[in-house]
Formats: sequence, structure tokens, C-alpha cells
Amino acid sequence: MLDAVQAYFDRFNAKDAQGIADLYAEDATVEDPYGTEAKKGKTAILEFYTGAVKSGSTLVQNGPTRIAGNRAAFAFTVFVGGLTQESKGVDVDMPMGKMEIDVIDTFEFNDEGKVTAMTAYWDPSINLRQA
Amino acid sequence: MLDAVQAYFDRFNAKDAQGIADLYAEDATVEDPYGTEAKKGKTAILEFYTGAVKSGSTLVQNGPTRIAGNRAAFAFTVFVGGLTQESKGVDVDMPMGKMEIDVIDTFEFNDEGKVTAMTAYWDPSINLRQA
Repeated sequence: MLDAVQAYFDRFNAKDAQGIADLYAEDATVEDPYGTEAKKGKTAILEFYTGAVKSGSTLVQNGPTRIAGNRAAFAFTVFVGGLTQESKGVDVDMPMGKMEIDVIDTFEFNDEGKVTAMTAYWDPSINLRQA
Repeated sequence: MLDAVQAYFDRFNAKDAQGIADLYAEDATVEDPYGTEAKKGKTAILEFYTGAVKSGSTLVQNGPTRIAGNRAAFAFTVFVGGLTQESKGVDVDMPMGKMEIDVIDTFEFNDEGKVTAMTAYWDPSINLRQA
């Protein structure tokens, strides 16, 4: 579980959306943030992370990963350096100013060590700030 | 929800177990750590925190509280300065050495702003260290 969390950060920061999706089970769910409709299944999850890594964000972990039972919990800050948007096959830089978002995620794992459920905790009105 | 989390830290560090219990709904559950049997109801919760504050621990939050929907998530470190044990009505100091435990908790709230479910993430073999 600790290795999977480390791989999550490494692959996100390497913009490796497929590598992130590979950490998930086939029927996994991603609820980001908690309270919104979950992305279900690897295709939807890959699409979600493909968009996320395109945003040009970097994740920096805050403190150690916590483990309990078949779950991991970890805190991090998302550093958004300016959004990009694909347009006619060309990545167009859309400067939006720098933002920082404080997030805590939990992963639930199955016996094969794959993530079956990710839940993210952050609120744009509370945990997002202009940097 | 932010105020409740702040009160949780303030009251724990003031050894105010009743004050902590008052943050919970009557039928709330406390699962600490996740994967163990939950304490259910205010009486069990008050008993749990009465023991916890007697341990002489101090909680120091790591980074801001994250909010999502009706839940809050927050990271902290427990500084255990030496355990105490009640014996024939006298608190006997049981020096166990100093320990630090890294924890992430989630609170789920009802419409009255009371905590209905607390889940703690930490593993004694991973998140506990001698200080």
C-alpha cells in the first residue's frame, strides 16, 4: 500500500495517466471530491487522470502515508502552475495564475493490491488559494 | 465543520473528554483505527476519550483541515509523553518513553453539525515511532 501511494505521486508528477490507472482495479471508483458523482471503471478513471495530468499540476505529499486495515490515507498539496487545454491537437497554454489546493485522499485496496476506491477530500471554497 | 475540528484539538489538549464527546451525535461511531471494532454511542465514546486524554498525549495538527460534502479530513501527530494508569484512585506514572504517532482522521457530520462517524487511519507498525 505504501508503494502504491508512492507510485501514485511519482506517476502523476511524470504525467503518466496510464500508469496511474494501472494502480486501480477494473471496477474501481474515484470520488473526487467526496460528495460528487464517482468515476467508475478503468476507462473513466484513465480519462479523468488524462485530464488531470494535462492541467500541469504537481503533487507534493504532506507528511507520511497513514495505513489502517486495507486503506491508506495521505495528505498533499496540488500546485497548479497554469491550466492547459487541448485545442485541435495542440496544447494551448491557458494561464490562470498559480493555485494551491490542499487535499487528503484515501485509497481502499483489494487482496491483489489494486485500489478499488479512491476518495478525495477538498473544497474549492476552503482548500484552494491563489499562490 | 472547521470549528468542530478545531474544538476537537483544543478539547483533547485540555483533557476535556466530555467536551470531545459533546461534539458527537448520540448514536455516533468511532473506528480508531479503521478495521477495528467501532465504539458506538456517546457512553462508549466518552469512555474511549476519557482513557485517551489520561494517556497524557498532545495532538498537533499537520496542515489545514480538508472539507468535502458533509465530511472533514485532517492530519495530525500524537505526541505521547509517557503513559499513565489509574490504580486505586491514584494516577501512577508509567514511563514508556516518548512516542509519536502520525494519524489522519475523517469526521462525518449530520445536519445539526454533530459528528456521526469518526474514522482514524494509523498503523502501529508503520505510523508509530519512538521519539
